[in-house]
Formats: sequence, C-alpha cells, structure tokens
Amino acid sequence: MKQLTLIITFCCLVMIGCNDSPRLKTVKVERPKYTIVIHGGAGTILKKNMTPQKDKAYRDALNEALNIGESILKLGGSSIDAVEKTINFMENSDLFNAGKGAVFTHEGKNEMDASIMYGKDQNAGAVGGVTNIKHPISAARAVLEKSEHVMMAGKGAEDFAEKNGIEIVDPAYFKTERRWNSLQKALKSEKGESVLSEDEDKDKKHGTVGCVALDQDGNITAGTSTGGMTNKKYNRLGDSPIIGAGTFADNATCGVSCTGHGEFFIRYTVARDIAAMMEYGGKSLAESAHYVINEKLVEKGGAGGIVALDQEGNVAMDFNTEGMYRAYSKPGERVVKIYKEED
Amino acid sequence: MKQLTLIITFCCLVMIGCNDSPRLKTVKVERPKYTIVIHGGAGTILKKNMTPQKDKAYRDALNEALNIGESILKLGGSSIDAVEKTINFMENSDLFNAGKGAVFTHEGKNEMDASIMYGKDQNAGAVGGVTNIKHPISAARAVLEKSEHVMMAGKGAEDFAEKNGIEIVDPAYFKTERRWNSLQKALKSEKGESVLSEDEDKDKKHGTVGCVALDQDGNITAGTSTGGMTNKKYNRLGDSPIIGAGTFADNATCGVSCTGHGEFFIRYTVARDIAAMMEYGGKSLAESAHYVINEKLVEKGGAGGIVALDQEGNVAMDFNTEGMYRAYSKPGERVVKIYKEED
Repeated sequence: MKQLTLIITFCCLVMIGCNDSPRLKTVKVERPKYTIVIHGGAGTILKKNMTPQKDKAYRDALNEALNIGESILKLGGSSIDAVEKTINFMENSDLFNAGKGAVFTHEGKNEMDASIMYGKDQNAGAVGGVTNIKHPISAARAVLEKSEHVMMAGKGAEDFAEKNGIEIVDPAYFKTERRWNSLQKALKSEKGESVLSEDEDKDKKHGTVGCVALDQDGNITAGTSTGGMTNKKYNRLGDSPIIGAGTFADNATCGVSCTGHGEFFIRYTVARDIAAMMEYGGKSLAESAHYVINEKLVEKGGAGGIVALDQEGNVAMDFNTEGMYRAYSKPGERVVKIYKEED
Repeated sequence: MKQLTLIITFCCLVMIGCNDSPRLKTVKVERPKYTIVIHGGAGTILKKNMTPQKDKAYRDALNEALNIGESILKLGGSSIDAVEKTINFMENSDLFNAGKGAVFTHEGKNEMDASIMYGKDQNAGAVGGVTNIKHPISAARAVLEKSEHVMMAGKGAEDFAEKNGIEIVDPAYFKTERRWNSLQKALKSEKGESVLSEDEDKDKKHGTVGCVALDQDGNITAGTSTGGMTNKKYNRLGDSPIIGAGTFADNATCGVSCTGHGEFFIRYTVARDIAAMMEYGGKSLAESAHYVINEKLVEKGGAGGIVALDQEGNVAMDFNTEGMYRAYSKPGERVVKIYKEED
C-alpha cells in the first residue's frame, strides 16, 4: 500500500540552555496516518532453539495481530479500540503469556494482570491478579472508562468486570499443557529434584503481550497484558498492571508497553522513564528508549524490552535480551522480527 | 541542639544547553548530618474547623513521630529503620488514615496499602489490600528485604508477612468509631439519604502517612502507608503501594512520599515525576516539587501533596489542598505545620 502521510505543522517547545526562557519554534514533520507496534514478550529467544514451524507460527500470529489493529486504525477508529482488539487476539493465542497462554503460579493457578492508558487525557485502567477474566485488557479498559479508580485487584476486579459485561470464564479455560509442564519443571527444580537450564530459569520471569497505537486523530494508547511469572507466589504483582512501570501513554511524549523481569521495571519506572527523558531531557524517543533499556537497565541487571511510539509515528522496539517477538505497521511499511540478529 | 553539618564536595553534572556535552562542575554544599520529613495526609484542613485540643493532638503526634526517626538517625542508624519506625508510630495512632486509624471500604473492611523504597540500590517493597497486618509498612519492608518480588497483594501478601514474622492482628483491631461513622455517612449519601458536605466528599479520597529520611551515610529511604479511600470498592488500589506513584527514592535525586487523590498520583507518576525532573531536567528539588504539585497536578485537578528530601538535606513539603499535616527535622531545625497559612 502506498504510504499516506499527513503533513502536520506543530509547535515544538524547544528548551534552549538551562535558563527558564523556552522558545517556540515551528517545525514541519510528516506523521503517518496511523502507526501500531506490538510485542509478544522478550527473553532467551534464539534461532537455534526454534523449529521452522514455531518460527512461522509466531510470525503469523504477530502479522495477524497487526492486521486487527491496523484495520481499525485505517478506518479512522480510535487507538484505544485498536490496542484492546489487538491484545484480545494475542490473549486468545496460546503462543503468548497472556490470557489463554498464561503461565501458572506456585499454587497451580493462572493470575493475570493488565493495564491500558490513553495518551490524550492520561486516563488509565488496570487489573491485577485476576483468575477468571478471558480478556484482562478489556477489564482494564472497563476500569478506565467505567470507574473512578485506576487499579483494582483480585476478587474486586473480577466482580467489577462481571458487572460491566466483561466475559468471565471458568479458570480451567487458561490451562494449557505447555505452561503446566513449565510449572512442574520449576517446582521440581525448587525441590532440588532437577535443574532448570539457564535459559529456562531466565525465561520463567518473562512473557507479556503489549501494543501501542497512534490513531488518525493523533491520540496514543498503550496497553499490556500478562500471565506473570511461572511459579510466582504470594499474589505477586509485576509491572504489567502498574501505570508508569509496564505501561504509559502521553500524547505529548510517547506510549510505551514493557515486557521483562517486572521487578526491575517497577523499581526503575521504565515506561514513565522513557517518556520523562523526552519530556524533561528533550531527547528523542529513539535516544530515550535506547538509554533506558540498553544502558540503565543493563547496568542494573534488568532483562527485558519495550515497544513504543511517539506523536510523529516514530517506533522504538528496544530489548536487552536474546530476542523479542515484535512487529509494527504503518502505511506502506510493516516489520515483523523475533531474533536480535534481525536488527 | 547545635547544628552539625558535614561539608561535602561532590560533582554535579550540569547540562549546558541542549547539546550532548555535559560539563562537570565542582560545587561545595553543606549536608546536614541527617534529615527527616513526614506527612500525615493532605486535605480540607482548615484552622476554623479545628479545636485547640485537636490541633495540639496532631502537632504532638507529628513531633513524637519525628522524635522516633530522629533518635535512630542521630545514632547513625539507617534511613530505612528511621522510616519504618516513624511510620509504625503513625500507624499506631488513630489520628491518621493508616494502620489503627484506617478508613473503611464499602464492605465495611479495612484494606491497607504500603510501600517503601531504598535510594541506595532502588530496591523496593509494597503490599496492597492487606486486612490483618498491624504495620503494613513493616510488611512492605519484609517484601523488600526477604523476597525477590517488589509487590504483593491481598491474601498472598498477608501469608508472606506472617511467614516472615510480621505482626498479624484480628481485623477488628482496625475498627475505630470515627472511621466507621465516616463510612456510614458516605453510604447514606450514596443512597441519597443525606448529602456529604463538599469538604467531607473531598476528604474521603485523602489520608495517608509518609516519611522520607536521609541518614549519616547519605542514603535516602521513602515510605508511605494508608487505609485508602473511605467507601472504596472492588479491591481498589491507590497510589500508596505503587512505586513511582506514591513512593520513590533514588540517592542521585530525591526521596518522595505522596498523599492525595491516588488515581491522579498514579496517572501522573507523581513521586517519580519529581525525581525525573531533577534527573533529566537538571532542576532543584524545590522547583520540581512545586511544578509537579502546584502546576501540573493543579491543572489536571489532582488534589494532594508530597514530602521529599534530596542528598543535600533540602526538604520540600508541597501541597495544593487547604492543609497538610507535615513536619521535618534536621540538626538544629524543626518545623511542624498543619495549615496553608503557616507557610
């Protein structure tokens, strides 16, 4: 498809020097009609460990997810619809650690987290530790749109979702053999009965899906959904339901969705950090994402990655692991990647 | 006590202009031996509505809380001990909406949240929606020190706390007549049987305790503990257990504890925002705290306040409400305030 672009002229606040006299400068930028970027988790994803079938299955799923969001954005739909529906598709796939593909807790349950944020008014919604909601991202959207709160957890979040027409399923719906086996391996290793490979040990901490979209009205939405960590205990909450950690959106800077070792993403407020570096440091999305993921987080030992986009439709897909399921689409341009060496 | 100060010389990274060439500048600053700052909630706190007895009770409690933290810091104790013990005292007082003084949920329960962050390594711990932990801030500290996680919610957090020797009490311990009556008023107003005054309506969203301390080793800790919002539903989590929203600490910038309408503090990542403005914008703590609380949040309609301090022992106690229970202490200097007009 031929690239359709919107030439917009906007006022860009450029801070000159460290004094307090901002100067207004008019610059011309080309904004694509829409942009959408997604991830399906970061981790020890190596080509040598993949079969051609598995490789294809992931690429097909990423393409199909993009198609869903893109079809909404093309018709002038909102970024919040695009993000929700794209993530719904990924939640339905057992390839990804979210919804149907969620990993198991220590007690053999599936406890899911999700959050969504709308960059126009920075309204947000999140659910944590839910066990019977088919599409946690849709429950997060309901919190955003239909409550005065931003975050609900456990039973309360489930009750709220049900009252607001969100699909409730039997928790058994989330049981997949692959994830059940991962838990059994983790439990055996904990008891000293077997040893997880280094890759297996690292990967039990990862896995999330996320989407950021820019619609034709220039509004950015970011959303993230996850099954959390394999073998997690004590109703642990990771970064995915935390605004500022796993998800952030502000039309003035960018939208970000994260995946990785959640504890690090909470402590370093990763999604907000990228936006803050743009807001207060005047850096570009590319510079900010690279610094936070490949310098700051690497130094601290926090494994993971992000997808992000800004008002001009610039896309960032940075990660410091061996791979990240990632893809983006804008008019005339589509990219789908898995391994590091594809960059 | 005579002011003891430590003359330290440190390197201050000053960004000159918007180019990428930071210049190192050596400046001399005086750092007090220790500093501690606390809050007991912000809201519609007006002198005309206070009795002299109530005014005195709050000032006495703030002074006593400072004494506890100060006695630890004076002897060279860590900021994390000072913050925990100071907040423990405030959790024991029924004057404040935390621990013993926690407000009631819609279902007539007390669900408490707390978080703590250590600025030296930015490790953090948080508990959300706990009902039987006498000192939620101590449970948050246990999560920080004794688990690989940052955040735990509900039953899981309670189980973890109990296993780690944190005091468990019968939930009835938290029932106070004053807070129970507030819930009954809110419930009646919800049913249309009575009308809350504007002040009562605003104040049911507020109330938290917090402490930030700088110890003799130069390490900053920030902590926050709360009973949440009166009449809250659906296991709502506010900003107090969210790192970056209600609590943040980084030795390189500052420590912050927030109080106010939690949903706004989550969406605008208030605690992290102040630190980010210092980190990326090169602004002082005073400038950053003022901008975030009295410009950004005011524009967005987010009521509340913060206490914060930086590596040099500078203190900020900004709020955009009618009052905030607030106090700080450093060698030779102590300030205890309630109303706006005291500034």
